[in-house]
Amino acid sequence: EKGLFLIAGPCLVESRQMAMEVAAELDRIRKEEEVPVIFKGSYRKANRSSASSYTGIGDREALEILAEIREGFGMPVLTDVHEASEVELAASYVDVLQIPAFLCRQTDLIVAAASTGLAVNIKKGQFLAPQDMAYAAEKAASTGNRKIMLTERGTTFGYHNLVVDYRGLPIMADSGWPVVFDVTHSVQLPGAGAGVSGGDRRFLMPLARAAVATGVDGLFFEVHPDPATAMSDASTQAPLGEFAAMVRELMQLQRCMQSIREEFHSR
Amino acid sequence: EKGLFLIAGPCLVESRQMAMEVAAELDRIRKEEEVPVIFKGSYRKANRSSASSYTGIGDREALEILAEIREGFGMPVLTDVHEASEVELAASYVDVLQIPAFLCRQTDLIVAAASTGLAVNIKKGQFLAPQDMAYAAEKAASTGNRKIMLTERGTTFGYHNLVVDYRGLPIMADSGWPVVFDVTHSVQLPGAGAGVSGGDRRFLMPLARAAVATGVDGLFFEVHPDPATAMSDASTQAPLGEFAAMVRELMQLQRCMQSIREEFHSR
Amino acid sequence: EKGLFLIAGPCLVESRQMAMEVAAELDRIRKEEEVPVIFKGSYRKANRSSASSYTGIGDREALEILAEIREGFGMPVLTDVHEASEVELAASYVDVLQIPAFLCRQTDLIVAAASTGLAVNIKKGQFLAPQDMAYAAEKAASTGNRKIMLTERGTTFGYHNLVVDYRGLPIMADSGWPVVFDVTHSVQLPGAGAGVSGGDRRFLMPLARAAVATGVDGLFFEVHPDPATAMSDASTQAPLGEFAAMVRELMQLQRCMQSIREEFHSR
Amino acid sequence: EKGLFLIAGPCLVESRQMAMEVAAELDRIRKEEEVPVIFKGSYRKANRSSASSYTGIGDREALEILAEIREGFGMPVLTDVHEASEVELAASYVDVLQIPAFLCRQTDLIVAAASTGLAVNIKKGQFLAPQDMAYAAEKAASTGNRKIMLTERGTTFGYHNLVVDYRGLPIMADSGWPVVFDVTHSVQLPGAGAGVSGGDRRFLMPLARAAVATGVDGLFFEVHPDPATAMSDASTQAPLGEFAAMVRELMQLQRCMQSIREEFHSR
Repeated sequence: EKGLFLIAGPCLVESRQMAMEVAAELDRIRKEEEVPVIFKGSYRKANRSSASSYTGIGDREALEILAEIREGFGMPVLTDVHEASEVELAASYVDVLQIPAFLCRQTDLIVAAASTGLAVNIKKGQFLAPQDMAYAAEKAASTGNRKIMLTERGTTFGYHNLVVDYRGLPIMADSGWPVVFDVTHSVQLPGAGAGVSGGDRRFLMPLARAAVATGVDGLFFEVHPDPATAMSDASTQAPLGEFAAMVRELMQLQRCMQSIREEFHSR
Repeated sequence: EKGLFLIAGPCLVESRQMAMEVAAELDRIRKEEEVPVIFKGSYRKANRSSASSYTGIGDREALEILAEIREGFGMPVLTDVHEASEVELAASYVDVLQIPAFLCRQTDLIVAAASTGLAVNIKKGQFLAPQDMAYAAEKAASTGNRKIMLTERGTTFGYHNLVVDYRGLPIMADSGWPVVFDVTHSVQLPGAGAGVSGGDRRFLMPLARAAVATGVDGLFFEVHPDPATAMSDASTQAPLGEFAAMVRELMQLQRCMQSIREEFHSR
Repeated sequence: EKGLFLIAGPCLVESRQMAMEVAAELDRIRKEEEVPVIFKGSYRKANRSSASSYTGIGDREALEILAEIREGFGMPVLTDVHEASEVELAASYVDVLQIPAFLCRQTDLIVAAASTGLAVNIKKGQFLAPQDMAYAAEKAASTGNRKIMLTERGTTFGYHNLVVDYRGLPIMADSGWPVVFDVTHSVQLPGAGAGVSGGDRRFLMPLARAAVATGVDGLFFEVHPDPATAMSDASTQAPLGEFAAMVRELMQLQRCMQSIREEFHSR
Repeated sequence: EKGLFLIAGPCLVESRQMAMEVAAELDRIRKEEEVPVIFKGSYRKANRSSASSYTGIGDREALEILAEIREGFGMPVLTDVHEASEVELAASYVDVLQIPAFLCRQTDLIVAAASTGLAVNIKKGQFLAPQDMAYAAEKAASTGNRKIMLTERGTTFGYHNLVVDYRGLPIMADSGWPVVFDVTHSVQLPGAGAGVSGGDRRFLMPLARAAVATGVDGLFFEVHPDPATAMSDASTQAPLGEFAAMVRELMQLQRCMQSIREEFHSR
């Protein structure tokens, strides 16, 4: 039986209080919906459009908060790493290391992350064909690590726009690794504001439903108690207060899809 | 309550026998699945990649076969028109006139088709943003005709490839007109063979399910008793023998989506 | 020795006076710069974004003006045709028939135009790979006509944007037919305004120079005495008063390129 | 008076002998053509498509060879850095640090490179609009460093293909920083082979000429004594034996463009 897992949390660990508020709600949701949740939070934003964008509260402070969530709620936590030299520190706090999309071709980084033995989630570069993610996964697997996930988050489509090619989901699944659909970044309009990425929250649910119907192992959402005041991705994070209903709807669709797959042996 | 209708049939009316075989099976499916079906068949292929490609058995012969299907099975029929001068002839045989994607900006053609009073299905050009289809619909509506459908069939993505932007389905629905998803042409790889369009049938069901989950009013499929021998679109038409199961699966997903929409008031 | 020819004129024959004013200036330029000029003017705009856009002063009226320019100035004239049924009328007034980019896959139209024996200029569809234009040319050549030109005018690049792939110029030249670069439409931003195509005149000269340096046989420009008041393509037509200097600069570059090609045998 | 400078050298410092051979020829060319040359060589390939691709002879060994070239020929040398932690080492050997295209959004890396006070060449990401490079330059300039260059190397165009948007050259020049055109990587077909990037050397000169005619401050070429045996970018490096003639042709075009600019005050 094939379920669905969630990777969810704020784009950035902006404060202990905010992270805890999100974690508590995600903990409630995972119990209510019986869905595994990996708590997601960046401890630093290393690839902002502009140098003047906010990058975080401090690496160790943010990582400590992630560790506190992992202990307090018994929920696995994920964060992203940007250079091989960051891997050791981050790995001592979290369960899953994530390779950002821009960095999915950086062999040293992938190998360093995979060598920790932790699970590794590699996001597909906006410039990459889905079949080429198999090579990124091989770099991680070359370390002996078998806990690898591949995440779709949209492909460059002209300027300041992304498009999700849903053919990419079964293509990436051919590699044999679990495939995650990053809903939040798939509705992003990169750099569309003046040095700030925008997007349209309206498409979150349509694109998430399309991914569940196409077939996917996990969904990735950024959630925020008050997206309008978020220090990053303000236009695309899901409002925490609406997230339970969003998950409930998607889990119901997933159950439909499970019974459809059983009956029709479709893929 | 919102159902789903189908536009289905062979790419080209290759022969009376073949068209009748497809129509009989579609008639059986529409009764079994309680799904409205519009029978689709081109009477001529006017926009083949190469001049040496087969274009048809003769206009009147093909149109007569469509009329016979309409009478014999009581099933509405659709065909596509390429010039304003063809509209009158085609309109005397069919229920729905279709504007091909390459021609969605030809004002005279749209106005001529809409002026017949028949339903008009305008396919979105591979070069058009989804919001701009509202202007194409307005051209048709300017004649007083209110039976207008808009059809997604993929957008130019580099060379020899198309991508479906699922954000386009709700964007086109904003226009107020029913939105159809053309599954067959959305998996096409235009001109990827030597002067012949290719594609990959494998993606038909994943992309169709994604469209139903996103939300759409109709699905468009080309079906053929033996796609390998089809005179056009050999790599993307659905095999007639598998079509009933494909429809059954999609209708089951549509019922799931209806109950999800009722419960969650989602769009 | 390889020169350069120009196709130039207003987007649309808006009035006799305006067309004559443009023709007189082009006549002056072709003599001064010793460059062959084909006068270009649409007699009707059949593919406007919106039905409410202006489409012309009347077909025969506009064609008569083109014929008057051809007689009065001894300058060949070009116009575009949109349906096979228009070809006969247009062919009786002009020297070159042009197939619009959206229509470059319409076999009947290409064959009808080529069958007149007049020169035919086929614009590359925004959705087409450059090597596929050889198939469009073959359709024309199948009539025995050997006066065929292929024109680049940009390729779909996301939504509301075009990009010129300069690799396409030598690729199209491989077909053996002369290659024209349509500067005006290459700087267009299709449908970027509310139902109106925009663009940026600033890029006209950089893109034109790039085409001459890459290597082309002809350049296509739309020119207007007062682009700001033009009834179409207001943001991309070249101002008539500046056109002589633009041509002089490009011809000087062309002479450089000729001596470079002679010395380096480059292509 | 505005000249043109070159950044040229092998993709990777494969051996002392090969690097010296290339440097000697570049030294000869710069004297003969009176063109400033910056010698380019990667000391390690950190972003190969596949983990099994060759990555280099050892960091220090390669950097020592670059330093030897700088001393022996009095030619400035450039190398690329992939993580902030590499910057100090590389900076002690070279004159220019280059930020790879995939990494043009990594704030820490750009700031670390610019903080050395060395010149910094930032390549435009394949996923970035040209106007957004101003933000990357600002990150470097925030350190007080004013020796910043921006390099175009093609934009994602569907899968396994890049396109150069020549509008991007004047757009990037608006930032006020010198703009370089990377000819070699602009003709690349990323990942088009099985885990290996391909490309077509045939387009090197047409695209380079187009860049000079559009207007650019520098050209970037990878050159190799025997591209067929190169350990990376075998299909797109320029053959060393042909490079002098290529440079001579481009310098002649540049002189034409200088006199054209003086006469026409064009941009």
